[in-house]
Amino acid sequence: MTTPLPRTALTGFAADLGGTKIAAARIHAGEVAERLIAPTDPAADPDAQLVVIKGLLDLLGHDSGAPLGVAVAGRVDAEGMWHAVNRGTLHAIGDFSLRDGLSRHLGPATSLNDAAAAALAEGLFGAGTDSAGFAFITVSTGVGGGLVIGNRLLSSGNGLAGHVGFVSSRFASGPCGSGRMATVESIAGGRGIAAAAAAAGYEGRDARAVFDAAAEGQDWAGRIVDSSAHAMASLIGDLTTILGLDTVAIGGSIGLAPGYIDRIRLALTEEPELFRPRVVAARLGHDAPLIGALAAHLNKERS
Amino acid sequence: MTTPLPRTALTGFAADLGGTKIAAARIHAGEVAERLIAPTDPAADPDAQLVVIKGLLDLLGHDSGAPLGVAVAGRVDAEGMWHAVNRGTLHAIGDFSLRDGLSRHLGPATSLNDAAAAALAEGLFGAGTDSAGFAFITVSTGVGGGLVIGNRLLSSGNGLAGHVGFVSSRFASGPCGSGRMATVESIAGGRGIAAAAAAAGYEGRDARAVFDAAAEGQDWAGRIVDSSAHAMASLIGDLTTILGLDTVAIGGSIGLAPGYIDRIRLALTEEPELFRPRVVAARLGHDAPLIGALAAHLNKERS
Repeated sequence: MTTPLPRTALTGFAADLGGTKIAAARIHAGEVAERLIAPTDPAADPDAQLVVIKGLLDLLGHDSGAPLGVAVAGRVDAEGMWHAVNRGTLHAIGDFSLRDGLSRHLGPATSLNDAAAAALAEGLFGAGTDSAGFAFITVSTGVGGGLVIGNRLLSSGNGLAGHVGFVSSRFASGPCGSGRMATVESIAGGRGIAAAAAAAGYEGRDARAVFDAAAEGQDWAGRIVDSSAHAMASLIGDLTTILGLDTVAIGGSIGLAPGYIDRIRLALTEEPELFRPRVVAARLGHDAPLIGALAAHLNKERS
Repeated sequence: MTTPLPRTALTGFAADLGGTKIAAARIHAGEVAERLIAPTDPAADPDAQLVVIKGLLDLLGHDSGAPLGVAVAGRVDAEGMWHAVNRGTLHAIGDFSLRDGLSRHLGPATSLNDAAAAALAEGLFGAGTDSAGFAFITVSTGVGGGLVIGNRLLSSGNGLAGHVGFVSSRFASGPCGSGRMATVESIAGGRGIAAAAAAAGYEGRDARAVFDAAAEGQDWAGRIVDSSAHAMASLIGDLTTILGLDTVAIGGSIGLAPGYIDRIRLALTEEPELFRPRVVAARLGHDAPLIGALAAHLNKERS
């Protein structure tokens, strides 16, 4: 098995297309040397999204043929087809050949799910550097992630592998954007937290408002945040029995909110010791999907 | 990555130490040529278990140094330490160096969890031959399994990876032998089924009696069997979103009971299409852990 490239070998370009913004970066020796951001138009068709990415990359000095990794919200299969996994975001994707689109606009490139790209970067160069069995879980509006086992990103032909937010949860009961019932995302993510607030009589409070209320000691809000943390702890136990994880890194706007990881760790004390890996904060922040996408591209080129 | 050996290259010996019986086999060109069985004494210490295995293997013509794979109930870590995972079975294991014990009694050998060994055999040579993302799940007294991703058994340093029966389930509520709460095993396995029967007022009915009553159309029993099948379908959906599975093979005395796989398939229709891999019966029966253990040994020797 080929050893992945060291971080310093990562020189090239990367883009990260999320639900709210598009980032593009020039990466030199494993560091983001320059970054540009544009807002995402969630109603734009995929080709229009690629035109925006190309515009940003052009400004950064990208030439067709330069190493390029592209992280995107949604699921990318082994044939490079791009599928929306969550009915709520980027609904105009449909099923689009990202590989052909990238090739047409930008030359050869590797595309993959944004949380998977972030997981690869965290696993190789961030919170999972010393880990043999690593999960990255990002908690924001939704819950996503990726798995790095033996320094390799766990992937599947249909591009679904690593979508850990769609694991079912005994703490959940509502519907999820994936179409599954009672998933971790439906209770732990921002949409689920807002829905729980509405159900508790606090209509119109988003996840940030619920966290603020919890920080002020309001019980109703504390209970909702704890449900999210318990669902996460149970997911971590599940991933650990399936994969034998030793380290789990938490990222995302909710994941990195003050006190949230401590609540997960506390909930995890209810699990037997064997099912309690190390739970840490993700380290690479917004650089993670960019660095991971370029790493995926350059490692694929060598294999 | 090394391609695994073809089935015909598997010549050597194997043993399978389960909760009720010990099997030993001489394997020639991938087929069990001769097999011997002895009852397991669950109170015997690990060394005594190895003496029984050695006795059987001696009768089959095993010499120290001949290729040997040993499948065991419980968890075997990367250092060859053997741990009981389920408080109910083989309670005398404690933490024992299976590697040293095997080496002392039988010469170099590879040991691994029995369901993991069966998964490897099914994945390479049985129900998962054409699969890129494969799970084997065995449902009997407990629920065990193994994962074969890209023709490799997914393993972890602590030997826990693949213990899919300990995944939590939104259909469960009781305690599990693993120490976790509300696991798939606690509702889908034979112990869970018997406990559900007792809770429904049918004290003393084991899983077989519950299946017989369900086959006769008794509603209380049909509901219990359906709960088991629903927990299994949800687990299959969970494993699919985590690993991107395309095929799941079901084995074990409950798993292969008439109609059980059909009940799982029916329960799985409640999941969105993306989370519904092919669900089939395991093909290799009692040979699976033996062939898988020898395959694990011979593939390890080459890597």
